[in-house]
Amino acid sequence: MAATDTVGLVRTATEFRRWWSDRQRAGRFEVIRVPFTDLAPWSFHQDTGNLRHASGRFFTIEGIRVEVGGTPIRAQPIINQPEIGVLGLLVREIDEVLHCLLQAKMEPGNINTLQLSPTVQATRSNYTQVHRGDRTRYLEYFIGDDLGETIVDVNQSEQGTWYWRKRNRNIVVLIDREVPLTDDYRWLPISLVYQLLRVDHLVNMDTRTVLACLPMSESTTAPNTMDATRAAAELLDASYFNGTPRASRTSRHGLSEIMSWLIDAKTRCEWDTRLVPLCDVSTWRRTDDEITDGDRGHFRVIGIRATAGNREVTTWTQPLLAPRGHGLAVFVTKRFNGVPHLLVAARSEIGLLDMVEIGPTVHLQPGEDTSSLDHPLLKRVAMAEIGRLRYDAMLSEEGGRFHHAVTRYRVIEIDDELPVDFPENFCWLTIRQLMTLLRHGHYVNIEARTLLACTHVLS
Amino acid sequence: MAATDTVGLVRTATEFRRWWSDRQRAGRFEVIRVPFTDLAPWSFHQDTGNLRHASGRFFTIEGIRVEVGGTPIRAQPIINQPEIGVLGLLVREIDEVLHCLLQAKMEPGNINTLQLSPTVQATRSNYTQVHRGDRTRYLEYFIGDDLGETIVDVNQSEQGTWYWRKRNRNIVVLIDREVPLTDDYRWLPISLVYQLLRVDHLVNMDTRTVLACLPMSESTTAPNTMDATRAAAELLDASYFNGTPRASRTSRHGLSEIMSWLIDAKTRCEWDTRLVPLCDVSTWRRTDDEITDGDRGHFRVIGIRATAGNREVTTWTQPLLAPRGHGLAVFVTKRFNGVPHLLVAARSEIGLLDMVEIGPTVHLQPGEDTSSLDHPLLKRVAMAEIGRLRYDAMLSEEGGRFHHAVTRYRVIEIDDELPVDFPENFCWLTIRQLMTLLRHGHYVNIEARTLLACTHVLS
Repeated sequence: MAATDTVGLVRTATEFRRWWSDRQRAGRFEVIRVPFTDLAPWSFHQDTGNLRHASGRFFTIEGIRVEVGGTPIRAQPIINQPEIGVLGLLVREIDEVLHCLLQAKMEPGNINTLQLSPTVQATRSNYTQVHRGDRTRYLEYFIGDDLGETIVDVNQSEQGTWYWRKRNRNIVVLIDREVPLTDDYRWLPISLVYQLLRVDHLVNMDTRTVLACLPMSESTTAPNTMDATRAAAELLDASYFNGTPRASRTSRHGLSEIMSWLIDAKTRCEWDTRLVPLCDVSTWRRTDDEITDGDRGHFRVIGIRATAGNREVTTWTQPLLAPRGHGLAVFVTKRFNGVPHLLVAARSEIGLLDMVEIGPTVHLQPGEDTSSLDHPLLKRVAMAEIGRLRYDAMLSEEGGRFHHAVTRYRVIEIDDELPVDFPENFCWLTIRQLMTLLRHGHYVNIEARTLLACTHVLS
Repeated sequence: MAATDTVGLVRTATEFRRWWSDRQRAGRFEVIRVPFTDLAPWSFHQDTGNLRHASGRFFTIEGIRVEVGGTPIRAQPIINQPEIGVLGLLVREIDEVLHCLLQAKMEPGNINTLQLSPTVQATRSNYTQVHRGDRTRYLEYFIGDDLGETIVDVNQSEQGTWYWRKRNRNIVVLIDREVPLTDDYRWLPISLVYQLLRVDHLVNMDTRTVLACLPMSESTTAPNTMDATRAAAELLDASYFNGTPRASRTSRHGLSEIMSWLIDAKTRCEWDTRLVPLCDVSTWRRTDDEITDGDRGHFRVIGIRATAGNREVTTWTQPLLAPRGHGLAVFVTKRFNGVPHLLVAARSEIGLLDMVEIGPTVHLQPGEDTSSLDHPLLKRVAMAEIGRLRYDAMLSEEGGRFHHAVTRYRVIEIDDELPVDFPENFCWLTIRQLMTLLRHGHYVNIEARTLLACTHVLS
């Protein structure tokens, strides 16, 4: 089909800016802080102190306690959202180039209000219409009806320090037909989406995680066609253990070695966690309009009222988790035998389903400083005092749950010799190995997935 | 190396029986019921009522509550064992045949006391010597030192209705040298181990799950050599998505279709669970010597004192979970285009890490009758009124946690037409597809893993 026939196509950065300005002007969206007393239908349970919606759906703010050998170590509030939501991306080949159907979507916690979202971004409560709003557009392509070819379908984790065992279903579906569009939806060539990843606070977290799960050819010159994507998927799946479980010419470690390394890290993890009533989290306190830790070093839980013209419902209240300051997530990359490798960490986080996933080389939470880094090189990486900065942007985390949660994402390339005595929780993986593990859930954490998507930007 | 030179080799069923009788005579093991007041260092926590060891290690008996949309539905006691234990199997080629190093091991809950265990079967509390007993034999082959070739290394679940998110590390390591043996350890050809799977209450649960994770050629005439095992592993990993995500000549469904089917089942799972204090489980009550449900339909928690001559410590007390009656687990198998397929169910269990795993065609808990089966064919399968019974044995579940927990395992082959309108939580998988999924954790539940090992017995 010729591009000129295609409705809702955004071909270039210039066309994108025009559409985006239109959307910003068209949007009516207001977010105001409200005290907890004005947050109905959200309220605190009288026995547990948990903050919850009257329907029992959506999510709750509860307490989580970390224990070692049965002894409580610390506790904090956490978001418990047991439902599996859908992050769905429709893709389509137009003029032999892969295009993604993206949405200009407002979320109450977003910086700039409007960010670029996947085709569908919906909790189960949303799409089963607990709040009786409009039905979720395009959901039928991802759930139930078999309207396209499923390229990606995997449950992935989200922020392990803010969510209790969150899973979202990352789905990419290929279609070969036009779909009815509203002004909020446009088809973008995938290369343009990668380009837009360099813009601060534009491509939202949900788009980034789904993009990261989309199999890519490692060659930047390979065409972004559907056949290339299918071929990349098959290559990933077929090369699962690289033919050999041991290191080879193309990777420092075989995948089964990497999986043993990850299981080792899980085995060493001596703490355990459990949900507790929020009122038992004694080091945090609740005021009229926030829940905050005594040191004011972590995050706050606040209440907001949002009013919008283009969401499923026009006005609603909800709690948001508001971090203090911004986080930092860095991948160190280096070529071995010409093959780019990423230095990853086996990172334990209290809310992760299986406690440990593969994370960036360096990941500092908002408010966390470099004193937590247990290797001098990692401190230098965090300060960007080493290597060549290949990617650097401030990106937002989920604006539907977090208020202005920002992470500085960086990719640093290091050419010279690196010390080999990294702590045991670090390992060098190739990009392909990381993409291969992403075919399954709960191997690669959300920050590493964002950074993996960003590595595709590097020329 | 010639077999005649090998120390501790058991070649035939006759030799096995001789060794086993010796072990039964040599063993000194006594298990007596004790009231909870005599269970020290185990005691009930005064606030929570949870039953725990004074060290805070090993495991606890707590409460689990099932909720739908925040509303409690039911509650029961559950074993919480957050540590990752090791189930390790040493394998070695002797006279070009693969042999496993197995152990005659006594467990307090075992039927017949003595059962055939893997080389290493140890909780982390065990092997880090919380109870100051002897060190765990052969552990160095599986943890830390790199003394062999790792063939299998994967965390798998255990009983999802009795354990809270239990994970055990299933490891198979190939070595090429003699190891020092005591009388409790013998090298058995793998074909003999499979043969012994037909004997009631002999091959224990831990051996079965590790065996299930060992890649096998699907051809029963293929030699059980290490090369054949390595080739099988590579084939499994390389064929991950069968080349195509859709059905093919050799399987009714492609693996990515199967993974979407499993995620669908997880998405439909509308309940959620959380640990609660055991004293909040109001429908169960605690007497002097047991914790039991009001209907006496489920299981009891009891206390025992064990005295043994060949364990790490010679006497200890502990709680055991004692089911009432025995369970039933059945795989229905059928050839499509000559390729054997298994009818599996996406089975949700309250204690599973991610709520749903692949289970047998039919699985009834001890005490559960066929009224829970939602398809007439499944009732006939449960009554063995259909098809040809290819495998039938009474096997024990973990004797270190459960008292006389028995499951009747059956494989039923059906040749004639089957109805195609199975409920959406059923799917036909090939044996190879099930083995492929077992390269990762938490896809295949413990009963399905036992049955998968049993399918290798069928000629």
